[in-house]
Amino acid sequence: MQSCAKSWGILFAKCVNPHAPCRHIHGKSRIFGKQQNRILTLNNACVTVRGLRTSAVYAASRQIDRILPRHDDFAERHIGPGERDKREMLDVLGLESIAQLIEDTVPESIRIQRSMKMDDPLCENEVLERLQKIASKNKVWRSYIGMGYYNCSVPPVIQRNLLENSGWVTQYTPYQPEVAQGRLESLLNYQTMICDITGMAVANASLLDEATAAAEAMQLCHRQNKRRTFYIDPRCHPQTIAVVQTRYLYLHVHLLLFVVFCSTVLLTVCFVYSMLFIPCSIFHIPLLLYVSDCYSKRLKYMEHIHKDNILMYICFKCPFFTCRDAAGKEVYRLALQTREQHIRRDKATSNICTAQALLANMAAMFGVYHGPQGLKHIAERTHHAALILAEGLKRAGHRLHSEMFFDTLKVGCSVAAKDILARAVQREINLRVYGEGVVSSTTSVLGTDYIRVHPGSCTMKLNSSSELMPITWNEFANLHPFCPLDQAEGYQQLFRQLEKDLCEVTGYDKISFQPNSGAQGEYAGLAAIKAYLNSKGDAHRTVDKHKANLAAMMITYPSTFGVFEESIDDVCNLIHQNGGQVYLDGANMNAQVGLCRPGDYGSDVSHLNLHKTFCIPHGGGGPGMGPIGVKEHLAPFLPCHPVVSMSAGNMSSSLGTISAAPWGSSAILPISWAYIKMMGAKGLVHATEVAILNANYMAKRLESHYKILFKGRKGFCAHEFILDVRPFKKTANIEAVDVAKRLQDYGFHAPTMSWPVAGTLMIEPTESEDKAEMDRFCDALMGIRQEIADIEEGRMDARVNPLKMAPHSLASITSSTWDRPYSREYAAFPLPFVRPETKFWPSISRIDDIYGDQHLVCTCPPMDVYESPYEEKRASS
Amino acid sequence: MQSCAKSWGILFAKCVNPHAPCRHIHGKSRIFGKQQNRILTLNNACVTVRGLRTSAVYAASRQIDRILPRHDDFAERHIGPGERDKREMLDVLGLESIAQLIEDTVPESIRIQRSMKMDDPLCENEVLERLQKIASKNKVWRSYIGMGYYNCSVPPVIQRNLLENSGWVTQYTPYQPEVAQGRLESLLNYQTMICDITGMAVANASLLDEATAAAEAMQLCHRQNKRRTFYIDPRCHPQTIAVVQTRYLYLHVHLLLFVVFCSTVLLTVCFVYSMLFIPCSIFHIPLLLYVSDCYSKRLKYMEHIHKDNILMYICFKCPFFTCRDAAGKEVYRLALQTREQHIRRDKATSNICTAQALLANMAAMFGVYHGPQGLKHIAERTHHAALILAEGLKRAGHRLHSEMFFDTLKVGCSVAAKDILARAVQREINLRVYGEGVVSSTTSVLGTDYIRVHPGSCTMKLNSSSELMPITWNEFANLHPFCPLDQAEGYQQLFRQLEKDLCEVTGYDKISFQPNSGAQGEYAGLAAIKAYLNSKGDAHRTVDKHKANLAAMMITYPSTFGVFEESIDDVCNLIHQNGGQVYLDGANMNAQVGLCRPGDYGSDVSHLNLHKTFCIPHGGGGPGMGPIGVKEHLAPFLPCHPVVSMSAGNMSSSLGTISAAPWGSSAILPISWAYIKMMGAKGLVHATEVAILNANYMAKRLESHYKILFKGRKGFCAHEFILDVRPFKKTANIEAVDVAKRLQDYGFHAPTMSWPVAGTLMIEPTESEDKAEMDRFCDALMGIRQEIADIEEGRMDARVNPLKMAPHSLASITSSTWDRPYSREYAAFPLPFVRPETKFWPSISRIDDIYGDQHLVCTCPPMDVYESPYEEKRASS
Repeated sequence: MQSCAKSWGILFAKCVNPHAPCRHIHGKSRIFGKQQNRILTLNNACVTVRGLRTSAVYAASRQIDRILPRHDDFAERHIGPGERDKREMLDVLGLESIAQLIEDTVPESIRIQRSMKMDDPLCENEVLERLQKIASKNKVWRSYIGMGYYNCSVPPVIQRNLLENSGWVTQYTPYQPEVAQGRLESLLNYQTMICDITGMAVANASLLDEATAAAEAMQLCHRQNKRRTFYIDPRCHPQTIAVVQTRYLYLHVHLLLFVVFCSTVLLTVCFVYSMLFIPCSIFHIPLLLYVSDCYSKRLKYMEHIHKDNILMYICFKCPFFTCRDAAGKEVYRLALQTREQHIRRDKATSNICTAQALLANMAAMFGVYHGPQGLKHIAERTHHAALILAEGLKRAGHRLHSEMFFDTLKVGCSVAAKDILARAVQREINLRVYGEGVVSSTTSVLGTDYIRVHPGSCTMKLNSSSELMPITWNEFANLHPFCPLDQAEGYQQLFRQLEKDLCEVTGYDKISFQPNSGAQGEYAGLAAIKAYLNSKGDAHRTVDKHKANLAAMMITYPSTFGVFEESIDDVCNLIHQNGGQVYLDGANMNAQVGLCRPGDYGSDVSHLNLHKTFCIPHGGGGPGMGPIGVKEHLAPFLPCHPVVSMSAGNMSSSLGTISAAPWGSSAILPISWAYIKMMGAKGLVHATEVAILNANYMAKRLESHYKILFKGRKGFCAHEFILDVRPFKKTANIEAVDVAKRLQDYGFHAPTMSWPVAGTLMIEPTESEDKAEMDRFCDALMGIRQEIADIEEGRMDARVNPLKMAPHSLASITSSTWDRPYSREYAAFPLPFVRPETKFWPSISRIDDIYGDQHLVCTCPPMDVYESPYEEKRASS
Repeated sequence: MQSCAKSWGILFAKCVNPHAPCRHIHGKSRIFGKQQNRILTLNNACVTVRGLRTSAVYAASRQIDRILPRHDDFAERHIGPGERDKREMLDVLGLESIAQLIEDTVPESIRIQRSMKMDDPLCENEVLERLQKIASKNKVWRSYIGMGYYNCSVPPVIQRNLLENSGWVTQYTPYQPEVAQGRLESLLNYQTMICDITGMAVANASLLDEATAAAEAMQLCHRQNKRRTFYIDPRCHPQTIAVVQTRYLYLHVHLLLFVVFCSTVLLTVCFVYSMLFIPCSIFHIPLLLYVSDCYSKRLKYMEHIHKDNILMYICFKCPFFTCRDAAGKEVYRLALQTREQHIRRDKATSNICTAQALLANMAAMFGVYHGPQGLKHIAERTHHAALILAEGLKRAGHRLHSEMFFDTLKVGCSVAAKDILARAVQREINLRVYGEGVVSSTTSVLGTDYIRVHPGSCTMKLNSSSELMPITWNEFANLHPFCPLDQAEGYQQLFRQLEKDLCEVTGYDKISFQPNSGAQGEYAGLAAIKAYLNSKGDAHRTVDKHKANLAAMMITYPSTFGVFEESIDDVCNLIHQNGGQVYLDGANMNAQVGLCRPGDYGSDVSHLNLHKTFCIPHGGGGPGMGPIGVKEHLAPFLPCHPVVSMSAGNMSSSLGTISAAPWGSSAILPISWAYIKMMGAKGLVHATEVAILNANYMAKRLESHYKILFKGRKGFCAHEFILDVRPFKKTANIEAVDVAKRLQDYGFHAPTMSWPVAGTLMIEPTESEDKAEMDRFCDALMGIRQEIADIEEGRMDARVNPLKMAPHSLASITSSTWDRPYSREYAAFPLPFVRPETKFWPSISRIDDIYGDQHLVCTCPPMDVYESPYEEKRASS
């Protein structure tokens, strides 16, 4: 589980519409005061001239940089406050320096006293050049490997306007439905499409990947009927079997590999299918179906597939429902989701629950783009191509393993398989090889972007375009995750460099990139501990209390209360002395990078939310990455993979497989790589310092207006703090949700509510927010405090006031009818910086969440709701 | 000059904000009814299997397509109305078929009776693959050629969020300031930056390129002081000299190549510099300054440059000014611009006047991104790198031609120049070579996107992402325009294919891609005619009347009244019989493609607005292309280039040089190439048919409410029509501008006003708009007609009514104060399809254009205006 606070900056949102007045552009513009007028040391310089920009001699280039310093420091763009800002903020805090703040915040005993060893930072324009060189070592062959990863076309309009559009990718997830109706509608489109295709009644909005979905389905069935025997067809994809096998170890169930015939449970499992990773993959139904309940039914099922190209899917968790807003309008909201907003401390079930919403949106738009007929046509065309291929193969004397297939053929070759493979290599084609001279080939009529991916949680930083651009490069996007490693040398180099830097940051010895989310990282880390304990004969160690059976302790540090507890190293020692292992939650790594290292002060394993601390965007429900770092003794137990042999994770000792792809969502790793390379050691530590400074500055400005819960030894918080709004319930009938909704009127996305303390707000500005934005946010909260005082002191109605009525939609503000005891301006433009021409408007009025949760109506709106008012009008006229 | 109508669709605008409810996505989604269930002819199919997607054997791929038809037809995505829509529209028009409409619209005598000969259409996902193959034939070497084109870095944030963002690129130019304040503010930033850098008082917002700017400056000086002698420094870039030389032929002035010392005129010309093409180029001041008034002053000027890195610029035309809107708010508007909106029939001075606004916006954001100190630092670093290079070269025994330079060195080599060049070739480096063993090298510290470019006029089609993506590919964006042709084989292939297709479309024999805009195309075409007549000894032919001296007639066809005149071929014959040539304005080519060809019915030359008819976006003031097509006899007179030898344009007979780059803004040609390849012959002709159908459908729906001016023989218009609103001036004091502004309230960008008939509106829907959008637009105009009736019949105040007060900004609608005799809803949501959550709001109230034109205040707002209200508030508290 992860503690979390929303980043509330919506700076960029204001820039998305080029028709609104714009004085800002994402990427932060600031005039740096560092003009250096060094005298040129021509003598030293000349030796480097020859190599100038003619080759990859970066050392020479770096030397040039020393003589001709660049003005452009990425860290200064990434980190919000400038020098003057920082000085002013320190003054407010009564501190001399940032160093003093850190001394007073982070316990001396755990602080590292040296700089991190990293390469010199690169500029934004350099980093892409360097990354291009790495990318060029990846070879993009035609891949007919299949196995869940297919070459599908992402229509350029979707790539450019959704996947590459920060409005979709970086803005925050739709927990606040009033400002996210567009994305909710798109997700409903996705779910509707899935239901239409599968014939199911309900669909969720995606899981991590196909293999995880299968494991989740098993767990779901188990929860539902408590039965303990599961069957899985051995013809399933090996990575799916591996992930299910790893998971079942923790379910206390039996798992049998079996071509099965009858079972109630199987009926359900049979329908498990994931359509998570790439929009188009849904139409490449592998012949390897999970299971089916009986042979005749299975045949019928196959026929069905062939006839209508329908695929099966099990739908659970996270459906979206419609309900009505305060104005009675039919609107969308999330329902049944499981994320941090809904986690209650001590009741958390940290399951793998994050969604692939961004990719679901892409899939939804893909459906809109092609339409039902188009989708069907694509499926038919794909199948027909396979039919033609099958006929050709048969005529050439090869033998098909089955006459029933959709798009993938398993072929017994009439000549030696190695001859066929040699010819395939010559033509740069990858086929799947079965030991016994059998190959398979998947037809792909369209041309994928393999976006191997998934999302996380809450530290919300600026995401620079330089970081994001490489993920759609052909050499990163279009490699099959199981392609021979000599075609993925670029990726391997990137993994090695990133692992080295992450080990330096964390003090760990080894990294596994397999986990696709923070929660999956936690699962992997704990599984590694379990495997390690088992290997030592400590299988009885299964709990986190009681000395004898102590397995591990899981600690969030700095704590979810936003404090660096002083005793962390003592606690770690105590656990170790009693035979246990320490799992340190990496969710708050953003407060530690460069200051202290979990691996130094006693932790054995952590996950790292790359999509938080290391700048992978996750606001749009985009894919994240939760790799785990471990100390040497846990390294042999890291995840392995049934198809691709990896250096980490020895097959015999490994915890097993937790994701379908060997290195998780590797296509997004260039984002974190670029962030680290551009920041350098100095930039990274400064980011941490400013994250702590920003939080303390805001806490200081707010402390005379609100109670700030939990502070450290010397009165400072870490990188986040808790604002207590509980007292206002009694004094003004105002709750955290009212404050959160009212913040929308001020133009801010609400911070995390009720975590880790019910009825409070958790605020984490991160280093990316600049002082002006933080001041605006503080002013908004102070304005709201004044509004609360107006209620407390009777100047404002206790029932109808701007807080209870928040947020105020455009429809309500522009209506002729206005019967509130406060003005339209007071409602919509409560401070001078909230202006009509730049305001980010809630598109609907407040949704009653409790009513919505209690009255789930699992249905899409009737078709006539989708008709345009224009059509209605014409029909009636 | 070009007749023109704005496309009023803003479909995409609604989709830019992912937080607003979205049911559409750009690229048009429609369910096609063309499901074909062909029985597979397996026998024929098998032969093609072997080649399936393994090589570039497109013929085989096409054969597969015949067996396995694709459902995805780009033409259906590009063309708005679907089959049912078209049927309904024909019914409204009382026609059986589109064929009948065309028969009744386009004169029989000029109609082509065969299909165009073109390749089969490609799908969106195929076209990029094909284009990538072409691009791969371009070799991107390191270029130190300089000459006005430098390797500068476009910051990724600007590339992605501006250059690749349809909100900036495709939406319409800021003629309607109420919906374009953001872009106007950005352009003011650009002009302010230019003034700051140059010390000039006024700056325009860009011309076509450096060479054109020099020619325009000469013309400006001539207009100002009527002197007839101009000096130009022979050390200027050759292409600049060539363009100025070509232009001066038509100015009746003398041009002397001379290193000059004194002249009043020169003082001005000296400052001519263009900073049009690439954001960063402004910091690469070539040693080749234009002229300077005296040697000592010149030295001082150079010193100045070295000291402060300032560069000079002449500023004229098109400044932006601030003024106040109806609500008294300080706002931005265009001033002194010269475009079609401001052209009055018969008074048009069709100069080269289109702006590079998109690139100016990029340059403005570049300034914001780096800040003044950053810009200065970059300039210093560039210069210092040149100093180091100079020192190294000297030590290696080479000789510099001058000790004064900014970033470019002219070097007399100590070894044979060919040895140096051979080594440069080995390292894939391009240098500029002077005949006598002298090379030059430009240091570029950063890394360009050569966007060779410029914009046009008014046909506004959908621009698909597939068309736009290739322009930022490295292989298209980063070639130096003067690089050896063997490095540009991809471009050469693209030019050849595009020329072939455009010749097929127009009936011409040869195309020149040098003109960068429609107006420049006209200039080039007329110059070619002049050169041809001169070569025949007909130098006396200079006018367009009087048989003896008749040079040429320029015809817009279909006419600017939106009609296919029947007598076009007779007119052409008459001109030819009298020794003249026919120039057919290509502005209305969108109504002719595939139906009739200028080259067939008697025209000798036309320009083609690729940025209109062939889908290069120009709404954002983006670069355009105005290539000219000519019949064989004019081919020898096409533009040539002083640096790059071209097959078209024989140096001795050529009209001269009209643009700096040999093939104009070649980097954007892939857009038109992709459009043509995806549409195919059938798609292109159907687009024309639907453009005509759409216009006639709208005219029909509107004709009972408004008078439609000018129709053809059988009562049909071509692709556009004129709506007469002049009568309402008398009956309700309502003018065209009131209707245009009121359309903003309905969510539409106003069409062209007062062209070609003062006081009217010109409407051109193009083929891209679908029926629903056209119906909404018609409904809006009918709603407005009703509002006019309300005034006419006294139900609405003649002074304070929704038309006179339009547009209604958010600020006015959300204000507590509302004293209008009509409701807020009536003002802002006049029809059901205009809804708060999706409405595209004018950000300010109406600007008084006449007042603005008469009260030019050439000043930027004072600095305190730029302070945020937040800062103001804090300062005062």
